[in-house]
Amino acid sequence: MLIVQKYGGTSVGSIERIKNVARKVAKTRDQGHDIVVVVSAMSGETDRLISLAHEITTSPAEREMDLLVSSGERVTIALLAITLNSLGYPAKAFTGRQVGIVTDSIHTKARIERVGGERVREALRQGIIPVVAGFQGISEESDVTTLGRGGSDLSAVAVAAALKADMCDIYTDVDGVYTADPNVVVNARRLDRVSYEEMLEMASLGAKVLQNRAVEYAAKYGVKVRVLSTFVEGEGTLLTEEDEDMEKVVVSGVTHDRNQVKITIIGVPDRPGIAAKIFGTIADASIVVDMIIQNVSQESLTDISFTVPHADVNKTVEIMRGVTKDIGAKELEVKEDIAKVSIVGVGMRSHSGVAAKMFSTLAAEGINIMMISTSEIKISCVIDAKYTELAVRALHRAFELES
Amino acid sequence: MLIVQKYGGTSVGSIERIKNVARKVAKTRDQGHDIVVVVSAMSGETDRLISLAHEITTSPAEREMDLLVSSGERVTIALLAITLNSLGYPAKAFTGRQVGIVTDSIHTKARIERVGGERVREALRQGIIPVVAGFQGISEESDVTTLGRGGSDLSAVAVAAALKADMCDIYTDVDGVYTADPNVVVNARRLDRVSYEEMLEMASLGAKVLQNRAVEYAAKYGVKVRVLSTFVEGEGTLLTEEDEDMEKVVVSGVTHDRNQVKITIIGVPDRPGIAAKIFGTIADASIVVDMIIQNVSQESLTDISFTVPHADVNKTVEIMRGVTKDIGAKELEVKEDIAKVSIVGVGMRSHSGVAAKMFSTLAAEGINIMMISTSEIKISCVIDAKYTELAVRALHRAFELES
Repeated sequence: MLIVQKYGGTSVGSIERIKNVARKVAKTRDQGHDIVVVVSAMSGETDRLISLAHEITTSPAEREMDLLVSSGERVTIALLAITLNSLGYPAKAFTGRQVGIVTDSIHTKARIERVGGERVREALRQGIIPVVAGFQGISEESDVTTLGRGGSDLSAVAVAAALKADMCDIYTDVDGVYTADPNVVVNARRLDRVSYEEMLEMASLGAKVLQNRAVEYAAKYGVKVRVLSTFVEGEGTLLTEEDEDMEKVVVSGVTHDRNQVKITIIGVPDRPGIAAKIFGTIADASIVVDMIIQNVSQESLTDISFTVPHADVNKTVEIMRGVTKDIGAKELEVKEDIAKVSIVGVGMRSHSGVAAKMFSTLAAEGINIMMISTSEIKISCVIDAKYTELAVRALHRAFELES
Repeated sequence: MLIVQKYGGTSVGSIERIKNVARKVAKTRDQGHDIVVVVSAMSGETDRLISLAHEITTSPAEREMDLLVSSGERVTIALLAITLNSLGYPAKAFTGRQVGIVTDSIHTKARIERVGGERVREALRQGIIPVVAGFQGISEESDVTTLGRGGSDLSAVAVAAALKADMCDIYTDVDGVYTADPNVVVNARRLDRVSYEEMLEMASLGAKVLQNRAVEYAAKYGVKVRVLSTFVEGEGTLLTEEDEDMEKVVVSGVTHDRNQVKITIIGVPDRPGIAAKIFGTIADASIVVDMIIQNVSQESLTDISFTVPHADVNKTVEIMRGVTKDIGAKELEVKEDIAKVSIVGVGMRSHSGVAAKMFSTLAAEGINIMMISTSEIKISCVIDAKYTELAVRALHRAFELES
């Protein structure tokens, strides 16, 4: 088998841990597999580099930021390749450029356009273990780019797709995807398998195991991805195509996200183009809006609520003050202490009454629902933040996820 | 004017110091000059990276070592370019690869083969300040190489040569080249000018202001080099072609080097090929031998003495034990507490009695000379280490260098 193994920052956070990773790679090699290793920067290193730049200015040049932070993975690939060689396993470190990971030129959040992989293939032919820098690529202008937070997951999946690898193992500090956050629900259960689509919903809902774009990429190219723990032996969770067995399960997991803030514009004149004006302005500022709700109009006035990530609140409020005035709305309301609780499952498509069960479960606990949003395979409710744990535990029980 | 400015590790050792460098660059720019900046890694960073690798193994893979340590300069060029941009001076960071510094494939001590410089020229045309990573290049195989300790000096000179720059200013923590080490001789004098050849002798004799290969490269391509202090304003010392004025000065400086150890092989059979055998074996181990002396032969036996750097003593002795046995020599003698004291000056070529004056000066102080070696423009004596300061001061006075 050809296996791509990806180790995150915590897994390579010290020389001792790099040695541990090398031993795991060696063990897989001893089992007769071909391996490509993809690694992140040592934990804390990327933040250290970013904070150096922020000592200079709050808005550093993005091309230079990419060059700066990309040095983190170079250190890790060199150290891991040195370790593997010292253990008698021929290995070679390759930067994003040397792997031929070509991206667009949107610095700090570039998108992969293609993966050449020639030098990696050549190394594999020679029995050498390629150790590849995650998170980085090069633009057509031959400048270093980075793929955004969690981008090493994407690097691993993209390399696995390019090499037509049999498996892409993502080693992290959790041992798989759970039915709920085990810190909240004591009897949360590790899922053996989860579909790409469910994983996408879970990730976007705050269960940060895998970068979303990595999951999308895996789904697009049919890359089999496993989420495993670096520190505990286990089978992990396999991400794969949806099948009939999966559809029998109505709900696969309950997730929660406390990182959103609800903003409401009250007394918006109900005219065509108003929503476009509001959300166009926000989009121009590169702020990602999650849920949007518009009330039924009364006397040609309506209220529009939406949620944005906590980090973008100040920027959003600043922008919205101007917009509120421009469109002649009454006032702006910001509610910070909210949480989004969601249930996810491909089985929802073929089962009815799921939403009703969710709402009644929350109602039985006396929890008020502020916003609702649904997709084919998930239902999300915004509630008061103080009820988060209560809501997650009640839903986990109601949908019998512990069994 | 087109000026290349090079700042060493101490000059960019913290964010505060990087800001200081940016202000100096900006000032030169404001005077109407075009500037290319070459920087080293922040002081301590290269050593930190090397010690990480040495936690893993004492003999790390050299290709990977180059990748590892080259990340240091990437951090500095990014931070300096970010700083210049934040001050309103458009700047772009360029790695060794992006500058087109092509070297041979001898990792950790590669030699520059050519400097393309296209992207640097293009940036200059656009009024952008190129900030170039010193110490690094790429091999024909497209792997990162490094130029050896002090290699950033060479990068600066090579870039200056490729761009036909009017001046290459090397900013360091000393404000120029002195007639002797100011820590030893209180009234040592800064030299306004020094010839490439004198500088080469001084550097090889232990006055480590500029990397030797950088001086050779500057001499070969006629690059005007100035040595200046980052922290103190001043004219520094100009390295230039030798001229008639320089020849009037018999001795330009006195240097000393305590980093050598004297090894003597006693009772060597005086046969052809013996010296070749001894020094061939040492060269194979990549040990650089400095002075070599062979005594007059007595009864077909001779003694051979030579000096090697302190760091290579153990390795040399180990090798020499075998060689001593092979060639049937009597014994091996190691003397550690020695120093090499030298006088340097292009004027020696046209003045006689210089050596005699040096020897009589040392004799007057009661200092015994163990080894002597001479070139056209320098005379070196190995003496007991405890007399180093005494010898340097006496010679400085005897050749009237304070005036």
